[in-house]
Amino acid sequence: MKSLLLIAHGSRRAASNDEVRALAAKLGMMTRHFDTVSCAFLELAEPSIPDGIEACVQQGAQELVILPYFLSAGRHVAEDIPELVQPKQAQYPELKIELRSYLGAAEALPALLLNLVE
Amino acid sequence: MKSLLLIAHGSRRAASNDEVRALAAKLGMMTRHFDTVSCAFLELAEPSIPDGIEACVQQGAQELVILPYFLSAGRHVAEDIPELVQPKQAQYPELKIELRSYLGAAEALPALLLNLVE
Repeated sequence: MKSLLLIAHGSRRAASNDEVRALAAKLGMMTRHFDTVSCAFLELAEPSIPDGIEACVQQGAQELVILPYFLSAGRHVAEDIPELVQPKQAQYPELKIELRSYLGAAEALPALLLNLVE
Repeated sequence: MKSLLLIAHGSRRAASNDEVRALAAKLGMMTRHFDTVSCAFLELAEPSIPDGIEACVQQGAQELVILPYFLSAGRHVAEDIPELVQPKQAQYPELKIELRSYLGAAEALPALLLNLVE
């Protein structure tokens, strides 16, 4: 079983967090590749990243792809997220975790931006 | 003359701001629709949004499309950016400013996210 976990920063604004949850739900409807799609938050919202990974494990995930929903390669992306993922990988050595690059690094993003405005 | 202004939050990390500047430069290379593409920052980096708009005017922009490079519809997108754009529109009534929706609302974004991980 293969799961996708979208990681967002988290906001004090509940509506912003709900927007991420709605996005994860939408991805879950769209994908044919993942059995489950869920989200987790670095801070300010629930579930936390460790709790989000744990929930995937409890649902039966054997492979877990983690996608940071961030635009910049700041400390959060470079350090905080890996530091939260690593202990769960140590706890579940048989779980195949792939921590992917953040959204802002996506090669297709510039073309998407131009499509929005041209 | 038609200009695109990408608006990012701005970061204390210079590299994150440079990433936005590089993105604007890349969009400038890619577009056939805009004569100039530049960026401005809500806070923590230069140019500010009013200064970014001013620079477009000084370069000769008659039409200005503003694209908020934000993932969530928070206060920044809903209030802060419009409040900074409005006085410049008042200052230059003949400048046609279009403040577009933020990146996170793009219909094509979920498919891009799935393409990244599938």
